[in-house]
Amino acid sequence: MSALLIREASESDVLLILEFIRKIAEYERLSHAVVASEETLRKSLFGDRPAAEVLLAHWDGKPAGYAVFFHNFSTFLGRAGIYLEDIFVEPELRGKGIGKALLARVAKIAKDRECGRLEWSVLDWNKPSIDFYLSLGAKPMDEWTIFRMTEDAIAKLAS
Amino acid sequence: MSALLIREASESDVLLILEFIRKIAEYERLSHAVVASEETLRKSLFGDRPAAEVLLAHWDGKPAGYAVFFHNFSTFLGRAGIYLEDIFVEPELRGKGIGKALLARVAKIAKDRECGRLEWSVLDWNKPSIDFYLSLGAKPMDEWTIFRMTEDAIAKLAS
Repeated sequence: MSALLIREASESDVLLILEFIRKIAEYERLSHAVVASEETLRKSLFGDRPAAEVLLAHWDGKPAGYAVFFHNFSTFLGRAGIYLEDIFVEPELRGKGIGKALLARVAKIAKDRECGRLEWSVLDWNKPSIDFYLSLGAKPMDEWTIFRMTEDAIAKLAS
Repeated sequence: MSALLIREASESDVLLILEFIRKIAEYERLSHAVVASEETLRKSLFGDRPAAEVLLAHWDGKPAGYAVFFHNFSTFLGRAGIYLEDIFVEPELRGKGIGKALLARVAKIAKDRECGRLEWSVLDWNKPSIDFYLSLGAKPMDEWTIFRMTEDAIAKLAS
């Protein structure tokens, strides 16, 4: 019998988390954008003020996937929500409900913490994921576009 | 001589913050979505664990605009960024550089805190804002779509 285990990550999982980050980046064709290291992740995720939380899924004792999330805030609701930064399942372990179980765990955390929303972003060509999210009752916010400033623009505007 | 002052909001500014939230919602044609109250804002912004930070702009001593932001996290960068939830300037005070000054203050905070990114979302029809953001070197992440689950879908998935 196959067994799925989902647990909170700890500092000893940093290398595994970095491997998952590199795998999701590869899937998203964004490997060139990964500059995270074990050191930066240890500091940002397991230091004095953790910037995000990580869940790990294991299938038959083998690392199977992960989810990374942090709290955001809605002024319209006047309360916090959860933003899901990453969710990933190993390609050879898909179709077993691992991704849904990870997302359900994040939803449970959102409910327990009285969050009004659970949000994340998806690449427009990622149809398998989009279909999956729609099936769970998530709605695409098609009328919104994310804008991003990277360090150069930040430094220029800040000065 | 006109004077612009930008300062951090404190608990005594809750009503003013709520008024700005209602004004930005009206501008975004989303007034129906505002359920925040003075009580929820006091608790979420000025309680034990503030969910976001607020900057207030005053022009000649009069409330002129605000910005609300919180920290997000990039797994690819392995470090925190800043997400700008709201930025708003009173319509009759636009064109004086108040919005740019607010955004520059947020950029300064991002730089001081060694954030790798500054991000926010814009409604696709809001061309004046989009042109303004592009002029500052921000890039639209056109290939991404935000998905959102509200409380009903969260509760269903969590159970």
